[in-house]
Amino acid sequence: MGNEDSYVALALKVWKAQIDRADKLFGSLSSEEVQHEIAPGRNRLLYLWGHLTAVHDAMLPLLGLGERLHPDFDVVFVSNPDKSHAAIPSHEQVRQAWNAVNGELSKGFEKLSWSDWLQRHSAVSAEDFAKDASRNRFAILLSRTNHLSYHLGQAVLGLK
Amino acid sequence: MGNEDSYVALALKVWKAQIDRADKLFGSLSSEEVQHEIAPGRNRLLYLWGHLTAVHDAMLPLLGLGERLHPDFDVVFVSNPDKSHAAIPSHEQVRQAWNAVNGELSKGFEKLSWSDWLQRHSAVSAEDFAKDASRNRFAILLSRTNHLSYHLGQAVLGLK
Repeated sequence: MGNEDSYVALALKVWKAQIDRADKLFGSLSSEEVQHEIAPGRNRLLYLWGHLTAVHDAMLPLLGLGERLHPDFDVVFVSNPDKSHAAIPSHEQVRQAWNAVNGELSKGFEKLSWSDWLQRHSAVSAEDFAKDASRNRFAILLSRTNHLSYHLGQAVLGLK
Repeated sequence: MGNEDSYVALALKVWKAQIDRADKLFGSLSSEEVQHEIAPGRNRLLYLWGHLTAVHDAMLPLLGLGERLHPDFDVVFVSNPDKSHAAIPSHEQVRQAWNAVNGELSKGFEKLSWSDWLQRHSAVSAEDFAKDASRNRFAILLSRTNHLSYHLGQAVLGLK
């Protein structure tokens, strides 16, 4: 394994570890438990789970891995705060979307070579990328892993 | 900049961004505010700040950058939960320790070449490292960045 491979493999390992933690945490909740708030008046666990699903779904086109599976999640879980919509996707819909989106990402990651990770992501133009080469796929992977950790730290507070 | 440099530079950029967030969040708190709990009955902000300081302090020997500055923080902020010790370091002591520890890490990071990041960290033996080369400094950097994000997600809940 060359050096470049090592960095990518490590970052993917950390991503996978956080996904596994989230799978365990959210996957074990009952339909009553996903309605728990992480703190009084704060987001519910279902909202956090849907939010993470929406943000991961957006990684598919951002990393050039395909079309989004659930663009409809954005209005409920990204553009608006929790409890602002009367109807949000059900527990089962969020669970299925979470699994589908992360499965699709995982398949896409397998097809990327280490040098693909240093190519620009789709939200930056070729012109801007020429000025700042740090706006690449690897940066997205690192920042989304940290985004997941950030909300995992909150989600554990909603357990029990 | 070679490819290997790119990965390391990106990971350091994400580390720095989280440190900046933590600086802003914790650094702006009054001595009354650091006593706020992140949720009823949960850790106080001062405890989280001290915990992060202790964990970052331990990175100094782990990454081969020097001796720990505050090994005494472990018993209060790592081995024991919040509110189990009558006397914990003061707001000012935690602030100073946080700044000193992260300053020392920052200086140490500058001296490491990209290939140094793929060398083993000090908690793994040469023998075990030969079996699993992923137990290196870069893995520590990624995991500690995510640890920081995890607790930042909690700390924002204690604001206001």
